[in-house]
Amino acid sequence: MVMTEIIERKKRGEELTKEEIGFFIDGYCREEIPDYQASALLMAICLKGMSERETFQLTQAMLDSGKTLDLSSIPGIKCDKHSTGGVGDKTSLALLPLVASLGVKVAKMSGRGLGFTGGTLDKLESIPGMRISLSPSEFFATVKKVGLSIVGQNEELVLADKKLYALRDVTATVDSIPLIASSIMSKKLASGSDCILLDVKYGKGAFMSTKEEAEELAKLMVKIGDYFQRDTRAEITSMNQPLGLAIGNILEVVEAVETLQGKGPQDFVDLILHSGVTMLLQADVYSDPKKARAALIRNIENGKGLEVFKRFVQAQGGDVSYLDDLAKFPTALYSYEVHSVKNGYVKSIDAMELGLISMELGAGREKKGDSIDPTAGILLSRKVGQEVHKGDVLMTLYTERADRKELVGRALNAVEVSEEEVPVPPVVEELISLTPTKEFHIEKA
Amino acid sequence: MVMTEIIERKKRGEELTKEEIGFFIDGYCREEIPDYQASALLMAICLKGMSERETFQLTQAMLDSGKTLDLSSIPGIKCDKHSTGGVGDKTSLALLPLVASLGVKVAKMSGRGLGFTGGTLDKLESIPGMRISLSPSEFFATVKKVGLSIVGQNEELVLADKKLYALRDVTATVDSIPLIASSIMSKKLASGSDCILLDVKYGKGAFMSTKEEAEELAKLMVKIGDYFQRDTRAEITSMNQPLGLAIGNILEVVEAVETLQGKGPQDFVDLILHSGVTMLLQADVYSDPKKARAALIRNIENGKGLEVFKRFVQAQGGDVSYLDDLAKFPTALYSYEVHSVKNGYVKSIDAMELGLISMELGAGREKKGDSIDPTAGILLSRKVGQEVHKGDVLMTLYTERADRKELVGRALNAVEVSEEEVPVPPVVEELISLTPTKEFHIEKA
Repeated sequence: MVMTEIIERKKRGEELTKEEIGFFIDGYCREEIPDYQASALLMAICLKGMSERETFQLTQAMLDSGKTLDLSSIPGIKCDKHSTGGVGDKTSLALLPLVASLGVKVAKMSGRGLGFTGGTLDKLESIPGMRISLSPSEFFATVKKVGLSIVGQNEELVLADKKLYALRDVTATVDSIPLIASSIMSKKLASGSDCILLDVKYGKGAFMSTKEEAEELAKLMVKIGDYFQRDTRAEITSMNQPLGLAIGNILEVVEAVETLQGKGPQDFVDLILHSGVTMLLQADVYSDPKKARAALIRNIENGKGLEVFKRFVQAQGGDVSYLDDLAKFPTALYSYEVHSVKNGYVKSIDAMELGLISMELGAGREKKGDSIDPTAGILLSRKVGQEVHKGDVLMTLYTERADRKELVGRALNAVEVSEEEVPVPPVVEELISLTPTKEFHIEKA
Repeated sequence: MVMTEIIERKKRGEELTKEEIGFFIDGYCREEIPDYQASALLMAICLKGMSERETFQLTQAMLDSGKTLDLSSIPGIKCDKHSTGGVGDKTSLALLPLVASLGVKVAKMSGRGLGFTGGTLDKLESIPGMRISLSPSEFFATVKKVGLSIVGQNEELVLADKKLYALRDVTATVDSIPLIASSIMSKKLASGSDCILLDVKYGKGAFMSTKEEAEELAKLMVKIGDYFQRDTRAEITSMNQPLGLAIGNILEVVEAVETLQGKGPQDFVDLILHSGVTMLLQADVYSDPKKARAALIRNIENGKGLEVFKRFVQAQGGDVSYLDDLAKFPTALYSYEVHSVKNGYVKSIDAMELGLISMELGAGREKKGDSIDPTAGILLSRKVGQEVHKGDVLMTLYTERADRKELVGRALNAVEVSEEEVPVPPVVEELISLTPTKEFHIEKA
């Protein structure tokens, strides 16, 4: 097989064979196919697309490029959860302990954040002592004992994805739905869980900008999961305002703990209950969504979800005293309140802009290897739909950097206040799954 | 400026600015932009195209990447000629001495062949002693003295093209009309002639497979030439059968000499007369095409064209005794006649297939650096439209390789013989130029 002919065929919009896709992925991982041929093919894929069959086979080839995790030694149904990422997305921190407290087994691998705020790993590491590098046996033992473990991505899984993603990032070939879907799903499949719940966010602060694109990506990932015989479902959720009130690493850990204490912001609680019900149904813990929902609420109220979170943190070396007394967490050196300049109702909060501001406050990374200030970030005081009066605090900015006061003006401009009342928007818009006859079932939330 | 944003914009089908194009070419030549970003952009250009304005600016940026030749020390109007290449294309060898014998100054840089047969340089080097590497002062002196010099491409001209072409070749990004046009024209413009005649071939043995593509490429190159204020005209010629009777290096030199002796095959003579008339008009030697044509015919008959060819060969160190006695040229060790198996008229001769066969006979290069057998090739005995009887020789294959007898069957299959009479097809189909008001003038030949 000749790589230029494979590129040529994709350039003409033809379907590649399984052998051609395998030749590319295998050759690229062995460094027999150079970056410049890979990037030409990736650009042709961006512009000419891939069929479902090609996407399944690409996912398979990527899986074959590394090891896969065998979770069969852990009893019970293992569930994984993946979010395409957004501003203020601390979902895993509250959702996973909560479902684990009801018997779902969660063995999750997570990534570091690049962009607005840290990823789940960065958030966890803002708890003193927390270790996110565990040996496989420690990882499995934690899941067995606590029901939940979250660790860094195992470098030996899906080697091809690591190499391809780095190349796509520098060649403007990220935004291809088949490439995104196979990248995410190959990692989820290699991680070995039986069920996968995907949270595909859209809007200004998200990877997919429109709901239609989010649906297209979600459907393709659900089909890939089905092809590999995993129960895969996808929520379409809005990122047209930040999720919850907190943006930034320690701020989000605190919000997650407070949510498990029954004091969470409404949109975040809604998301967790919706995702939690889906995971409990996937794991066959409940078959009735109403009972599942009641059980989740009960385990927030009785503190069992928080209890699992603390046991999980303790099992991975974290200092639980910070969770018992949230005031122990350090706070940022500087804080600036952003005040409303008019009366009315919050009409929109630009999640993308607040993401960029929080990065400049120190909460995120501009490039790989940058350090993060765990105390930095933004705490919202108002969300879309809420009333506001002139002079009210809209949000507070936190930073360790002395020269960030000018961000107050930008933050103010990110909030639109209208005179008319504004309805509170839903977070979860729909849930996409496959029926037994392999048709899409779309349930409006 | 950031390269990923430039790639992103072209991926979305947007027009790049002059500064972006310059940033890319300059950065790529300085090796600050890596191959994998360049190939992603090239693929996006292949699939999304470039406007005329972008193509002009790409050509300018490529010109700026190297030196340009100043031919002003050579008196008279300098004309250059470029063919997109085909099977049996020895046009430069006969045409350029002929027009030089009528006062046109020709300072031509040429390439080596990759593919079917050698390029003009390889053909010239089959004349013992011939040097194609001259110093600039030798090159200029030869043009002044003889009217003609042909040398290898100066490595310092259009640095970007050398690098980009090598990358395009291995990333399946060759077949983009704006990229082809800017590559050819940047080299022609850097070579410094006042007038440029382009021979854009189409058909099975050519770079462009359809007449429409050939016209599109020709028009774009004529416009680029006009943008840079050079009198640029383009012939559309058919490569649906080989040009002339000879394919292979020595065989083609011999045919060129015989053509200048008045014994050339009709289609080749037709092409040379058509191109010659155009060059004489461009160089303002004649304003009446009929007089130009008569002058060309006269200088074949009186031997003045051949005289210039011999003076040119002598000036560049070649042994002219071979041209005076063509029988001195060595002949191939093996020759195989291909006989017709039926009566009728030659309907078609597959130029592509004969090109491939001549490569296997030893006349061409499969990859860069391969050596060429100057004696190898094919001599046709029949052309399209001619009558043939069963048992007649259709062509003779020449090779130094002992094991090529099986090519006889393939060669026979490349010739289609029909029972009905077949008209002789024209070689030159049209001539494209720009009117003074910058509109295309297309003259059917």
